[in-house]
Formats: sequence, C-alpha cells, structure tokens
Amino acid sequence: MTYCVGIKTREGLVMASDSRSNASYDQVNICRKMHTFIDPGERVFVLLTSGSLSCSQSVLTLLRRDFDQGVGLATAGSLYDAARIVGDQVRKVSAMDRQALEQDAYKFNVHILLAGQIRGQPHDLYLIYPQGNPLQATEDSPFLQIGECKYGRPILDRGVRYDQTTLEDAARYALISLDSTMRSNVTVGPPIDLLVYTRNELGISRQRRFTDKDPDLLAINAHWEQALRRAVQELPPVQFDEVETPK
Amino acid sequence: MTYCVGIKTREGLVMASDSRSNASYDQVNICRKMHTFIDPGERVFVLLTSGSLSCSQSVLTLLRRDFDQGVGLATAGSLYDAARIVGDQVRKVSAMDRQALEQDAYKFNVHILLAGQIRGQPHDLYLIYPQGNPLQATEDSPFLQIGECKYGRPILDRGVRYDQTTLEDAARYALISLDSTMRSNVTVGPPIDLLVYTRNELGISRQRRFTDKDPDLLAINAHWEQALRRAVQELPPVQFDEVETPK
Repeated sequence: MTYCVGIKTREGLVMASDSRSNASYDQVNICRKMHTFIDPGERVFVLLTSGSLSCSQSVLTLLRRDFDQGVGLATAGSLYDAARIVGDQVRKVSAMDRQALEQDAYKFNVHILLAGQIRGQPHDLYLIYPQGNPLQATEDSPFLQIGECKYGRPILDRGVRYDQTTLEDAARYALISLDSTMRSNVTVGPPIDLLVYTRNELGISRQRRFTDKDPDLLAINAHWEQALRRAVQELPPVQFDEVETPK
Repeated sequence: MTYCVGIKTREGLVMASDSRSNASYDQVNICRKMHTFIDPGERVFVLLTSGSLSCSQSVLTLLRRDFDQGVGLATAGSLYDAARIVGDQVRKVSAMDRQALEQDAYKFNVHILLAGQIRGQPHDLYLIYPQGNPLQATEDSPFLQIGECKYGRPILDRGVRYDQTTLEDAARYALISLDSTMRSNVTVGPPIDLLVYTRNELGISRQRRFTDKDPDLLAINAHWEQALRRAVQELPPVQFDEVETPK
C-alpha cells in the first residue's frame, strides 16, 4: 500500500509521500514515490505515485524520457495539459500491461498526484486516475490523496483551508496526516518525503526526507500527542441524560 | 455503512455508535445501533451492531426473546460466555439467511460489539465476527471498532490507554472519533449514541443521544477544531534540507 497527499493553498503546494512498497506481506521494500521534473525558472512538476510499482515506474520512465528530450511535460502549455500528458502515459502503460495483469487477477491501479507550475500560469494540483482522466483540486477541496487515504483524512478535513492555511502549517498537516496513517497501518511506512513549493518559485528549495528515527519528526510527534491529550482534557464535559434504571 | 466503537479502561467501558442506515445511496434511514440488556444489580450488556440491518435485527430479536424468558444472556456465567451466546445467535441467523443473501451477491456481514459486566466478574469488551467467534479487547488494544473504522482510529491510537485514560476522557475520544468519521464519510451519520459504564455499577446511569444540531456536540466540535489548529501552529517548525537546484 501507499499513502500520498497533495495540498493546494493560495500560497503554494505541499506534497508528501510514504516509502513502503510491499509485493506481499513478507516482501517489504523502501521506494521513493516522489518524483520531480524541473526546468529552473520555467516549470516545476512534482509527481506522487501509488499502485503497482512496476506500472508506476513505467509511467515515470516514459515521462522522464520525453522530458529529457524536451517534449512531453517539457512543453506542456498548462498544468491541465501536463495532467493530460501524464494521463496519456498511464493509458500507454495500461495498453501494454493491463490485460496480462487482469489475466492473473491483478488490478491496473496506478494513481498519480501531479502538482506544479509553469511560468506565467497558476500553480495547481491534479489527481490522475488509472483510466488516465484528471481531477483538479479546488478551493473547496484543496487537498487530494491517493492510496490508504482514510486514516489521514480527518486532520486535513478539520484543518486545511485554501485561503487561510499557511504553507508552513500545510506542511505540518501533511506530516501529521502521514504519521497518523503509518501508525495505524503497517502497509504505509517511512521514510516520509515532504516538499513545499511557494507559488512563482519555479524551482524547488524546500524538500526533506524523514526517517522513522528522525529527531525532528519524533519531536513533532511528541508535541502533537501531548497537545491532543491536553485538548481532549480541555473539552467541555459531556453531560448525560437522566436515565431511569428499570426496577 | 456504520461506525461503532467500544473502549475498555481500568475504570469501565465507553460505547458509542452512529445511526445511519442506508440500503443504497438513495435510501437513507435513522436506526439505533445501541441495545442494552439490563438486570439491575446483577448484569448489564451493551451491544453495538453493524452490517445488514435485517440480519443484525434478527440477532437482536433472538437475544431479546431469550433474555426476557430468563435464558441466554440472562444466565451467562461470564462475559466470555455472553460473547459465545451472541455468537451462537449470529450463527443461527447466518444459517437462516446467508445462502439466500449470497445467491444475490450480498454478504452476511454482521459484526457486533458486546460490552458489560456480570456481578462478581470483571467488566469486559468483545467483538463478535460474522462467523460467530469472539475477540476480546486487551490492555494493549483497549478499544474495538466495527464498520467504517479507519477515519476514527488515529485519535484513539494517539489517546486511549487502558491504565491512564479516565472514563470522562474516553467518552470524549469516542465522540471525536465518531464525529471525525461522520465528517469524512456520508455513510456514517447522526444521531450519536454514547454510553459510559463505570465498573461495578451494574446498571446504566450515563447515556446520551446527540443529534447533529445538539449544542453540546457543536460546542465540543468547535473547541476541538480550535484546539487542533492551535496545536498545529505550536508544533516545532519543519526544517528543510538544502536543495541544490539544477542550473
């Protein structure tokens, strides 16, 4: 399994991903799911992937080959066009592999988050489905998730707002969302890759990999747990109805 | 869908359930999933149910009929025996309905949480599976969930400890866990039923139903969201690695 989240706010973008890959319960590996395509000052794309590693690797390989040859993502006119280019490669890999996978009851389940900006255009965030079609993050729904989404969602629902959340806070929400998921589900695991992109930066200056023993991550966790418990204790007391016990 | 949670601490038990029942997306009803069996001063059982309403109703009807006739749960010698009695009725309903359901591709998916105490015995908490076998809550895993479990789990993982959590705090954790789930998933909905049982009480004195407009629940939610946001803002800042942007 996998858990990746992308957040779009007025100020920019936050992307975060776990690194666990498991072929089955007894074959667990570490694998980076965050991939960047950068033409400094011109365009930045950050991709997070979930689903069969073999298939998502193929999509990335095809995208990288085109980018390095100055086509594909290198010439996309907008983030929407970029999402379509990613979707086209997803479809290409689907055409190559889906039938063989389904023959053995595997699913073609590649999901991709694409965030970034092209010079002169707004920064944006998309989810590309295994069918290749793109979904855009909106001001009302400013974050998108792929993989094991449920554990990490409530903290985002409570906290993340397009207009109000600073990028620094969005990064903390993403970290807590990732960490909460890792804690409840062994198929999502460290290291955590975190990237913060400020709009119009057109490069990448803030990126960090947290191992599970990273002292900063441990400190954030310890602070967070203490704050949560204090917050629970400071909630208004729960009042109860009068219950008549049957005689 | 459904979400129910039971918490066992040294001091007692907390049970909480939502009330949404949906036969499909366009047939949504309210339905109480919390059921009590009380012989004051002697024995108390609280059951929470998930799965096909038709099947869980049948299980409850059979359990109630026996209890009212002074057999079944009315004479169980321990909570383990009570869990086995519940499991037996689950198996009876399975024998009546499973084949017909599976013929039309429905699943027999009744899950039940059973909490309570019998005089002279410790209070306890069990989950009974659709196959009828029981799972006991332990000091290491002091809460059990059924239905749509994932959204509401991280807050419990972070906060609930068998030895340290007071019943008042456990009730707040249960409320937040329920509310977080309702917020992220429309198949889980109000009212919330909450029950707090203090060990050796052998009766029920603290029970409450919260509608979605309940002023106390709204106040707890507002406090909670404010506290969470403050807690996020007070976390240590995230430091980033120096990234060399390619020239």
